[in-house]
Formats: sequence, structure tokens, C-alpha cells
Amino acid sequence: MTFEVRNDETGAFAPAGMFDIRGAEAGPLARLRVGVKDVFDVAGHRTGAGNPDWRATHAPADRHAPAVAALLAVGADIVGKTLTDELAYSLNGENHHYGTPVNPASPACIPGGSSAGSAVAVGSGLCDIGLGTDTAGSIRLPASFCGVWGFRPTHGSISSEGVVPLAPSYDVIGWITSGVGLLSRVADVLLPASLQSSCESSKRLLLPDDAWSNADPVVTAALSGSMAALADRFAQVSRESLTGDALDSWQQVFRITQGREVWQSHGAWIERAKPTFGPGIRERFQWASTIDETAAARARDERRRIANSLDEALSGALICIPTVAYPAPLKGMASSDASRTRALRLLCIASLAGLPQITMPVASADGRAIGLSVIGPRHADHALLRFASSLAAPN
Amino acid sequence: MTFEVRNDETGAFAPAGMFDIRGAEAGPLARLRVGVKDVFDVAGHRTGAGNPDWRATHAPADRHAPAVAALLAVGADIVGKTLTDELAYSLNGENHHYGTPVNPASPACIPGGSSAGSAVAVGSGLCDIGLGTDTAGSIRLPASFCGVWGFRPTHGSISSEGVVPLAPSYDVIGWITSGVGLLSRVADVLLPASLQSSCESSKRLLLPDDAWSNADPVVTAALSGSMAALADRFAQVSRESLTGDALDSWQQVFRITQGREVWQSHGAWIERAKPTFGPGIRERFQWASTIDETAAARARDERRRIANSLDEALSGALICIPTVAYPAPLKGMASSDASRTRALRLLCIASLAGLPQITMPVASADGRAIGLSVIGPRHADHALLRFASSLAAPN
Repeated sequence: MTFEVRNDETGAFAPAGMFDIRGAEAGPLARLRVGVKDVFDVAGHRTGAGNPDWRATHAPADRHAPAVAALLAVGADIVGKTLTDELAYSLNGENHHYGTPVNPASPACIPGGSSAGSAVAVGSGLCDIGLGTDTAGSIRLPASFCGVWGFRPTHGSISSEGVVPLAPSYDVIGWITSGVGLLSRVADVLLPASLQSSCESSKRLLLPDDAWSNADPVVTAALSGSMAALADRFAQVSRESLTGDALDSWQQVFRITQGREVWQSHGAWIERAKPTFGPGIRERFQWASTIDETAAARARDERRRIANSLDEALSGALICIPTVAYPAPLKGMASSDASRTRALRLLCIASLAGLPQITMPVASADGRAIGLSVIGPRHADHALLRFASSLAAPN
Repeated sequence: MTFEVRNDETGAFAPAGMFDIRGAEAGPLARLRVGVKDVFDVAGHRTGAGNPDWRATHAPADRHAPAVAALLAVGADIVGKTLTDELAYSLNGENHHYGTPVNPASPACIPGGSSAGSAVAVGSGLCDIGLGTDTAGSIRLPASFCGVWGFRPTHGSISSEGVVPLAPSYDVIGWITSGVGLLSRVADVLLPASLQSSCESSKRLLLPDDAWSNADPVVTAALSGSMAALADRFAQVSRESLTGDALDSWQQVFRITQGREVWQSHGAWIERAKPTFGPGIRERFQWASTIDETAAARARDERRRIANSLDEALSGALICIPTVAYPAPLKGMASSDASRTRALRLLCIASLAGLPQITMPVASADGRAIGLSVIGPRHADHALLRFASSLAAPN
């Protein structure tokens, strides 16, 4: 196997390296620099998906993924492919083959993944827009750990054509920026025009006890000021549990339905190409191969009930939770199943129902960034971004 | 099996029938009536996909497909589900279980399919916008046969979430209207905002000999005036063959790659549910089940070469061809493989490369509608629609 070396000191960029594809002369994103997670097709480059065997067994892309083409069409420039966890099936950002991009907010800690390079490149000022994907939290978690803004849109709003899938009923294209203004401007470009007008403001705020009590005290303490300021904007605030203490079973429903789709997406390639995976990823694919259809079907039924209950809870409301239950762990310490489980308990909420979520870099603790999240109703992406902008603006 | 009877005399509406879901109070499509092909999820209704066994084995949809939600969000009203060929795997519009919607342009003839009901509902004035899908021509062919406008966007521009798949690497959401103005207004709503600005005008027109010589003389004669008027707009016109006489092999590449994906999409359900299919559909699924991966992989390689050659041919150019090689056949006469093969030779061009195509109801012959098509470069959807509008406007 040969590959080009990474060519910046943060390690944010994938083996494909940095390069320059100039976008249209003019347009709303003219001359903004985009780092593209190495699961998107960029014409003429191999899509590596964070795994050398994937890279070796796939030809260079004939054309850009539509989301990449869309950014180029409005004047953005693509400055490189960014590092991803292997096949995006991790939340750590520690790539066994290619290394760990340096978290700009706390260099001793993991950046989080799987859109690790996009979060690091934005946080380090190497690009303005980090294009990524989010299935289980792969935009939200690294944005939170790296102290930048991250947005996961409503599932199904943006075509995933030309993007390596992980679990299609969960996969979304998302993006990371260092300010909320640009987060919105990218939404104006990538989301269907129709959604712009479809936003109503929410009157109630949910601060669900079961979600908040799941987070480390250091996280809740760091977020308490921002959370209180946010709550002040609402006439009605509820702390009622979202799940009746079932967050752990939600997390299991997520993991089983996701794992089944992961194997359907990649099992045939794995059995044929026998790729080398790093620790954690390897065991996770192995486990995914054992999920039987009966268990998956039962979990899918449960997922539908959960999604419907969330749609109901979000009618006229927003949900505010910590993005991640704990601050970024030290490098080399993160691969435990226990921490993954704890992260998924909060991240699975928006994933299960395909809801839009924004993570805001509002706090820090012990020199580590802590993100606060707001989840909005289905298709209220623009309203959610406007609300976040209003929080960031001086009153 | 029970189902509601169709409730209009054209038969355009699916067993789910006509109903009324009111969209937003205001918006760019306020109070326009949409008929939704019965492969899209509409919340609270079963998605029937044109087959009673599909309908019986699937629960009512929990929520709208994003494309449906997007139209409602800008003020359009959904007035019903429209009839489709079984699982959209036909170009005829003669549904063995539910009947044949009446072609408003020539009632003795088939309407074409698979978006048969959407084309008929628009042509009959029962709705303003016919939402449909196009894999092998399922928007373009029925629009041509029913004397209405039809648009197939660039593949991958609009998410197919909440839509029954047929062959995902070919499937697109498309729409049918009775005028080009509304065709564009729907594009403004459903396509990503970024594409609006990315259009350059094309300088050359290709009228490829191999495509034109494939059509019946009655079709080329009917289209000759409009084709000449269109050619007058271009500084350069070329009649050079597109394929070097290989249209038939292109059609075979299409059919094999499509068939393989069709079986991957639906084989498991067919083996489990053992549905009853009508003639034509049944044999086609049976054949799709026999395509082996080696043959499919070879055809996919060939497809990539074809798509690249089309991207090159369309650099700064448009292609103008007849939409269908023959006028709408009489009912009950259309199911032959020979006519399907002839139709696919022209329809496969845009499908293979995922290119945008517009069909314009410019002519008729012996009382049957004949559509003229223009295919544009990838992602030049808006430029293509603007060009078509300029043709329709008085000079």
C-alpha cells in the first residue's frame, strides 16, 4: 500500500492530502475554503473512507458528490480531503492507520470522530467549512470536542449520492464551522429551497431530566450558565423526562438497527476484500455481522415508536441537552465500549428520529471544550439555525 | 385484500384515492394541487406501489417523504395518491390490478408509465403538479404520451428518502405539469438552492443521428418543425452519432445494471411475500433475479465509460432527441419486449449518466401527443429549464 503523507501539522487532512479545486468565480460562498471528509467523492481522487484497503480497492471518483458540486457552484474552494475514522464507524477520531488529528482545543485529548479531520481543520483555521457526515454523532461529537459549531440536518433533506454509506436510514450530510453565521449560510446552499420558508418558532423548551442526569457533573456545571440564558427565552420550560428512564434502551435500539444496516452496507465488501481494521472498528463490524433480521425488525418497530414520540414532544418545542455526556478523553483512552455507550445515549435521540441538531461551543472545563445542543422539529432546520444565531448575537 | 375504489373517471388516482392535505397558508406554490405517485410516503396513508400485496404487507407511513413535506411547506396542497405501475417497473401504465388511467390526449392509447396517474391527472386538469419518479423513463414517457411537460432532474440532486426504490443509482424524483413555468417553479422549490446560480448557457446543439434514426418516421416528421426552430437558437449544430451505433448495447448495459439493482431492492421481499404480479412485471422480476454479479459488474464498468463520454459530449452543449421512438400504442398492445427495447434506446441516455432531461409537448400525429426532449449537462437543471422556457415564450 502506498499513500501520500499528510501535509499539515495538525493531521487533519487525509492521505489524499491537501489540494485546490477552485469553485465558481462568484457566489454566496465565494473563496471560502472547504475541507471534505474522505467519504465524499471528489472527481479524480480516490475516496479513502479512512481505510487503506478501501482506498486500494476503489477507483478514483469520476465526479464530485452533488454536495461537493453544490459548494463549488456557489464559489467555495475545496482545499483537501479530511481524515475520517474507518468507514465512519467510530466516535473517536483515532485512526489506526493514519493517526489522530490534533484537537485544537485540547491537544492531549482525542478530537472525536468520525468527521475528525473536518472538525480539526476548522478549529485550526485550515479551512472555513468542514464537510462531514453524521450517523451516530459524527458531526456533533467532534464539533463539541474541538470547540466549533456543528450542524446535523433533518434526515433525508440532502441527497447522500456520492458519499460512502454507513447506515443509510441514519446517515446525513452535515457541516462544521467556527461561527454560526457561516453554519447558516451553508444551510442556505445545501438544503432544499423550500425549507427556507417552512419555519415556525417554538414556544416551549424541553430540558429533559433523563438526558441531563446522564452527563458528568463537570459538563452540566460548565453548561449551566448558557443553558439558563437559553431557557430565559422561553415562556414555558419543562424538565420532564423524555424517555421515562429508557435512554439506555433507546441507545440499544439505535445500535442494533444501525449495526444491521452497517453490515448490509459493507458486509459483502468486508467478506470479499478482507480489510485490516484497527481495534474497536474490527470488533464492531464483527458484532454487526451477527445481528439477525428478527432482532433488527423488532428494533426497527421500536425505533418507529420512539421517532413518533419525539415528533410529538417537539411539536412547538425545542430540546436542549449536552452534546456529549463527558469532556474529550485523553488520547489512547477512548476506545472503551462504556464511553461509546454513554455518548450514544444522548446522541441517539436526534439520530433515531432523524431530527436536526446544532451543537454550540459555549463552554469549557479544565481546558476542554464543552458543546451545548439544541434539537429541533423535523424540517425546522432553518428555524433552529436562526434561533442559534439569535443566541450568539449580542442582545 | 380490500381497497377503496378509484374515485375519479380518469382512473388517475391510486386505490388510496383522492384526499386533501392542506399545505402552508402562504408560499410560492400556495394552493396548487399536487397528485403524488403512490410510491411516496404520505403520512397516515399506506404506500401501495401499485401492487396489492405490497400495500397489504406495509404499514401506513408515519410521515411524509421529504419531497412531499417540501411541497406542503411552500403552500401546495396534496389532493391524492396517483396510480403507478407495479413497483414502478414498467413503462406502460397498464396496471393489472387497478386498471389503466385514461390518456387525456388519446383515450384509446396507453398513458405510459410508471408515473401514469400523475401524467393523466395533470393532463386531465385534476391537479397542477404530478409528482413522480423516473428510473428508466417513468416521468418522461408518460408525459410525452399524455401531452404534458415532464422533468427528470440530475440524479442525486433530491433525496429519495421516503420513496419506494427501484434501482437507486438510477432513481430520481421528477414532476409533470401542463406548462413550463410551473415546471420551473417546482424546481425552484425542490432542487438545492445552490444549483440556481450554477448555470452557463450552452453554445452547441447535438442532434445525434443514431438517436433520431431510431424513431418512427411519424415521430421525426411531427417533431421536425420544433426541432428546426430549436436548432436555430444555436451557433453550432452537430448531427454526429453519440454512440457510434451502439445505442442497442447502451440499452443492454442499462437493463442489466438496472435489473441487478431492482433485485437487490426487492428480491428479499418478493421471496418472502410471494406477491402476485401482472404480466410483463412478473417476467421482468424473474429475469432480474437471474443476473449474476459478474455480468452486472462488467455492465457497471461499461456504464461508467458511457457516463464519462456523455459528460464530455455535453460540455457546453445540449442534446435534442425525440422523447420516445414511437407514439403511444393502443391499450392492450404495449407489453411487448420489442417496444420496451425501442423506448429504452432513447430513454437510457439520460438515465445512464444521471443527466437532467425535459420533455416538451410540442407536436402530435394522428391525434397522439409527441414529446421533444432536451438533455442538459449534469447539474445544469435550471439552465435547461430556462432554455425550455425561452422556447415556449413568444419571441
